[in-house]
Amino acid sequence: MVLRVLCRTFVCTIKAECSSSYRKSPLINCQRGQPLSSKPVWGSKKRQKYLEKFRTETMANPDIEGTLAPLRSSVKEQGDYVRDLKANQGSENELAKAVSELKLRKRLLEEKELELSKPAGNEFDRVKMEDLIKRRFFYDQSFSIYGGVTGLYDFGPMGCAIKANLLSAWRKFFILEEQMLEVDTSCVTPEPVLKASGHVDRFLDYMVKDVKTGDCFRVDHLIKASLEDALKDKKVSEDDKKEARETLGKIDALDKDGFATAVKRWKMKSPITGNDLSEPVEFNLMFGVSIGPTGLVRGFLRPETAQGIFVNFKRLLEFNQGKLPFACAQIGNAYRNEISPRSGLLRVREFTMAEIEHFVDPTNKDHPKFDNVKDLVLTLFSAPNQMDGVAAQKMPIGQAVESKLVANQTLGYFLSRVYLFLTKAGVDPSRIRFRQHLGNEMAHYACDCWDAELLTSYGWVECVGCADRSAYDLSQHSKATGISLIAEKPLQQPVTVDVVECVPNRAVMGKALKQDQKKVLDHLSSLPEADLLALDKELQSSGKSALNIGGAEISLTKEMLEIKKYQKTKHVEEFTPGVIEPSFGIGRIMYSIMEHTFRMREGDEQRTYFALPPLIAPFKCSVLPLSSNPEFQPFVKQLSKDLTQNDISHKIDDSAGSIGRRYARTDETAVPFGITIDFDTVNNKPTTVTLRDRDSMEQIRLPIEEVVPLIGSLVKGHATWKDAVEKFPKFTQQETIAKKE
Amino acid sequence: MVLRVLCRTFVCTIKAECSSSYRKSPLINCQRGQPLSSKPVWGSKKRQKYLEKFRTETMANPDIEGTLAPLRSSVKEQGDYVRDLKANQGSENELAKAVSELKLRKRLLEEKELELSKPAGNEFDRVKMEDLIKRRFFYDQSFSIYGGVTGLYDFGPMGCAIKANLLSAWRKFFILEEQMLEVDTSCVTPEPVLKASGHVDRFLDYMVKDVKTGDCFRVDHLIKASLEDALKDKKVSEDDKKEARETLGKIDALDKDGFATAVKRWKMKSPITGNDLSEPVEFNLMFGVSIGPTGLVRGFLRPETAQGIFVNFKRLLEFNQGKLPFACAQIGNAYRNEISPRSGLLRVREFTMAEIEHFVDPTNKDHPKFDNVKDLVLTLFSAPNQMDGVAAQKMPIGQAVESKLVANQTLGYFLSRVYLFLTKAGVDPSRIRFRQHLGNEMAHYACDCWDAELLTSYGWVECVGCADRSAYDLSQHSKATGISLIAEKPLQQPVTVDVVECVPNRAVMGKALKQDQKKVLDHLSSLPEADLLALDKELQSSGKSALNIGGAEISLTKEMLEIKKYQKTKHVEEFTPGVIEPSFGIGRIMYSIMEHTFRMREGDEQRTYFALPPLIAPFKCSVLPLSSNPEFQPFVKQLSKDLTQNDISHKIDDSAGSIGRRYARTDETAVPFGITIDFDTVNNKPTTVTLRDRDSMEQIRLPIEEVVPLIGSLVKGHATWKDAVEKFPKFTQQETIAKKE
Repeated sequence: MVLRVLCRTFVCTIKAECSSSYRKSPLINCQRGQPLSSKPVWGSKKRQKYLEKFRTETMANPDIEGTLAPLRSSVKEQGDYVRDLKANQGSENELAKAVSELKLRKRLLEEKELELSKPAGNEFDRVKMEDLIKRRFFYDQSFSIYGGVTGLYDFGPMGCAIKANLLSAWRKFFILEEQMLEVDTSCVTPEPVLKASGHVDRFLDYMVKDVKTGDCFRVDHLIKASLEDALKDKKVSEDDKKEARETLGKIDALDKDGFATAVKRWKMKSPITGNDLSEPVEFNLMFGVSIGPTGLVRGFLRPETAQGIFVNFKRLLEFNQGKLPFACAQIGNAYRNEISPRSGLLRVREFTMAEIEHFVDPTNKDHPKFDNVKDLVLTLFSAPNQMDGVAAQKMPIGQAVESKLVANQTLGYFLSRVYLFLTKAGVDPSRIRFRQHLGNEMAHYACDCWDAELLTSYGWVECVGCADRSAYDLSQHSKATGISLIAEKPLQQPVTVDVVECVPNRAVMGKALKQDQKKVLDHLSSLPEADLLALDKELQSSGKSALNIGGAEISLTKEMLEIKKYQKTKHVEEFTPGVIEPSFGIGRIMYSIMEHTFRMREGDEQRTYFALPPLIAPFKCSVLPLSSNPEFQPFVKQLSKDLTQNDISHKIDDSAGSIGRRYARTDETAVPFGITIDFDTVNNKPTTVTLRDRDSMEQIRLPIEEVVPLIGSLVKGHATWKDAVEKFPKFTQQETIAKKE
Repeated sequence: MVLRVLCRTFVCTIKAECSSSYRKSPLINCQRGQPLSSKPVWGSKKRQKYLEKFRTETMANPDIEGTLAPLRSSVKEQGDYVRDLKANQGSENELAKAVSELKLRKRLLEEKELELSKPAGNEFDRVKMEDLIKRRFFYDQSFSIYGGVTGLYDFGPMGCAIKANLLSAWRKFFILEEQMLEVDTSCVTPEPVLKASGHVDRFLDYMVKDVKTGDCFRVDHLIKASLEDALKDKKVSEDDKKEARETLGKIDALDKDGFATAVKRWKMKSPITGNDLSEPVEFNLMFGVSIGPTGLVRGFLRPETAQGIFVNFKRLLEFNQGKLPFACAQIGNAYRNEISPRSGLLRVREFTMAEIEHFVDPTNKDHPKFDNVKDLVLTLFSAPNQMDGVAAQKMPIGQAVESKLVANQTLGYFLSRVYLFLTKAGVDPSRIRFRQHLGNEMAHYACDCWDAELLTSYGWVECVGCADRSAYDLSQHSKATGISLIAEKPLQQPVTVDVVECVPNRAVMGKALKQDQKKVLDHLSSLPEADLLALDKELQSSGKSALNIGGAEISLTKEMLEIKKYQKTKHVEEFTPGVIEPSFGIGRIMYSIMEHTFRMREGDEQRTYFALPPLIAPFKCSVLPLSSNPEFQPFVKQLSKDLTQNDISHKIDDSAGSIGRRYARTDETAVPFGITIDFDTVNNKPTTVTLRDRDSMEQIRLPIEEVVPLIGSLVKGHATWKDAVEKFPKFTQQETIAKKE
């Protein structure tokens, strides 16, 4: 049995560890009674037709398909085997084994694919990028003067501005444009809330401890590293290597015993000291806190912002005047006490999320604005394609929804909006894919779940999760609190229903039962109709009855209550809304954008910069006087004032150093445009300045009063640099100086 | 001795509990060696002259001065006594007692003053306001479906939008306009950082426990409530009442023993059960967390955002190319595990702060932009005026700095900017005062510290603290880590200095000392010059010496190292920068703005609303079709699109209900402007709409294409409603309908 829940929400994991157990966990077990029509129709002929049609547009690179072909068929063979097992109701155990093997083969295929498709000669240099990030303090390890803490990062002025701009763009793009509600709820969360949501029991990893030093290791990471070493070791026999490969293949599906067996079988020791290791133990990934002074109120730092929305559902529905659908968003920090954080911003202990919970009538997940996006072509890596060893394919989202490849319009609409946002923010469109979770197909849940994955030097990284959480969360909180979290909709036709109601005679009951009265009333109000009728029958016949409440027997008499039966006309139907959740990991998106926009100047590897779009660049513009000549100062001051008045963030660089060196420095902080004031500005009429474009290094000369409005247009996307170059004469003098250096 | 540190930063407390111990604590003990000129010159004749001149402009209300006169002189009498004690070097104990009495008298004066100056007949109705806040979900208690947790609040869509708008305005007003750096650092903070900052040892309150139930109470709150009851109790003797009054007066100055004595003396019991109470115990107000899986790395949630800036000082200075002054800001959450949170948003366990740390050469705290604000008149409640029982006084900040009432230009500049920001955000200018901390005068520290206090129904609430933190924090972190956190400035004249340097012979030393080598080198590098010279002397004379490092004796020989003595020319001077910190409590400011803008419609107490300025109103505008007639829909859609494109947040209310009722509803969510589409819009050319102003309820009729630009101007403050009314004809029809209802 699979117990681990590694990817409770997308932010918690990178793709490779997104174990199928998540899909199987009741956490996302979709609402029963959902109409079949909303399920993907994988097996149907219609699906086959669509998939074949669009396979001609797959993302496969023809140059490398020859090499990949055997790997692809190896995946397909195993995929078909898994399908057969499902169809023929094979044993759990058999199925789990087969799925593990499928995942292993998928991984081998993907690794080869990435290896072969790397552009030759133009390799991304992560060390150079990290050097720039550190040197210009985009972000860096927290508390490093105290030795640092892994998994915690501080954003410096540049990183902080990028983050703030990204969040502000997100707020405009999603909340303002879609008229969503937004909330800002507590991070500190009492235990019962996270018990109900499943996090207390399921949000965990396994670790082993060095029995002497107490050092902790994530056991799956340890096994993986150790077996990968074994595979490379010439002294290890072929039989052992085969076994190691098998274990590696199923590592995501191992449970506590499985891990324990592997640690013993391979005689693993602490990689630091060589000491023995403890048995694997569960480690809950939430930071525990004690609320208030008594030490008795246990709580946690929230592991996702979503629960803060669910517990406020009643207030939000009321705020929305009882109407569905509506979406509520939240931007905020979440926490995850990783056993061994790594991969920089990709796996951290404190991170910012932006989550949307879209509440919807589960019988109608159409979206009124779907038509606006239906022709948008997305790269979809569907579950069937993954099982068939086929590459991701390009498809208009309208087709994907029509074919039920994507379960419904609302989910399709969000995938499109996510794509549009990411590309607007600077993500390379060719490095976005939407990968469908595989689990669905195996577990036959009605949910559909697609991750927006971005290709980085760490592989494909899950950055936005788009999941159908169905009615799970609202139902769980309702169950835990006894408060109904439902919506209503008008019935087409009023219906008449039988009602059975218990009306207590509080005077009699109170006198007889004293402090037990409340318990009895609570119990009675929770009884199903049939039990009430049975109770009534007994009271009517024998005049009394007994209730068993929490092990205690309590006697009731006929006088204490009356069971009323009558008919009522209902005009509305009650239901628990379904939830569709796009959930953004802001740090991961930022990191991916930085990788995608990292550039080196041709012929000068030392001049590195980020070609960030003006929308999220920390400063929109720099102001550079050619030298420290005081005559330039009035112009600098006036420009700075005008820029500030127009809300254009800018940086004045009047330090010593040639203009070329200062251009290089503003490039390093990703400033897209630079205004230079030179002697022509001071001496000639009309007063002109130059404006330089970071990406092309082109410069134009224009009247000083036109430069701020032009930058405003460029930043807002109302004009492009091409427009600017067409309107104003090019200027080459200073760039020549810069290039000479 | 006073041990408690109640108001480590302003957000931690409301004014009444701002104990003088804070001033005395080494936490804010200012840098020694600061030039005397930066100290306030309270005793000087110049000060007297200024204070007298401006006393004519005090805030005192002549109608009530008669009643207040005896209270004022009682304060002055005690103030003079305290001054005398200081001047004559009275004992600590005597002084503490005298200050307590002074505080008591000050409180009585202030309470009377507030009581008498309440506007008659137009009393603020907190219950009505809280009802509106709850009903329209501005904010509410967190997790209330789970029973709620005190001190935790969730901001609903309206509160969240106000908060986001307030922060966005703050970012523009301070960071963008002042070209500050901004960072975003970790909340989870390892213990050594907060040990160095003083929070681990000093950020605490005292509590007592119910010995049977374990219920905890803040002991000062308990004593206060209990003694105030005693004062009202007819059965309590006059002697006891006198003693109770005395204890009340010095409650802020009590230490652990003092609390214990009071609890025993007054035979206090648990107010809930009547059980006995424990001895007072210290309770650290930080939330503890355990970082990583071992449980060995202890940390806390940060109690203020400032430390995240200090620990990054080196990187920030480097980012700023080594230049001072510069300011770094941070917006983020901080946490405080209150013993008994109360007063709504004013004292909570999780809150958002916006802090600025302005790093400056301590010998020059002038500010280049001070001239821009010097004529701004602020209400200053100076320490001398507090001691003289005189009301706060209005004074141009330029005069206040010139007279040294406010210690320096930078602090004065920030006070002005704080005032301008608060009033821009909707705070009533007549309910802002800047109160100087009293402690300074007594402790003779060079720091100056002024709190922006806002008058609310809870009294004067400390909302922004402007403190001179001097070099304390940087020095502490430097001491704790051994990393120098300093800045440099060029010397006017280069100076020649003697240098003593220890140059190890690593080959010899390593061979002899093995793993002890590092320890020895660290020790040698920490030795003062004199010790190095003594060591050299010993090595030269006897050829060897011994070091005592951490209790172990380690032998050195002459061959292991050489002590070099030479002269060096220095061109720069090193120094630890001073820090001036304006620190904003966002929740407190929000709450105050809401109180200050809460309104009831004349003649209709049910119609309540917040007259929030457009800058921070959640939605800038509503769009209201007169009825559900489908002919209105195209206009609604077009307006919504135009508003979105212009980044104007808006709310469409096409629900059933008369236009009057819907106006009342948009008023409740503080929407400043409403566009109505009626039959004239549909039937007449040119196409016109009406625009309604929330505060005046006036309406104008204008062409549809002009309404969005007009709202844009109104929201940005480029135009006022008066301008609008002058430009477009008034419209009365709908308002008549609204009023009839």
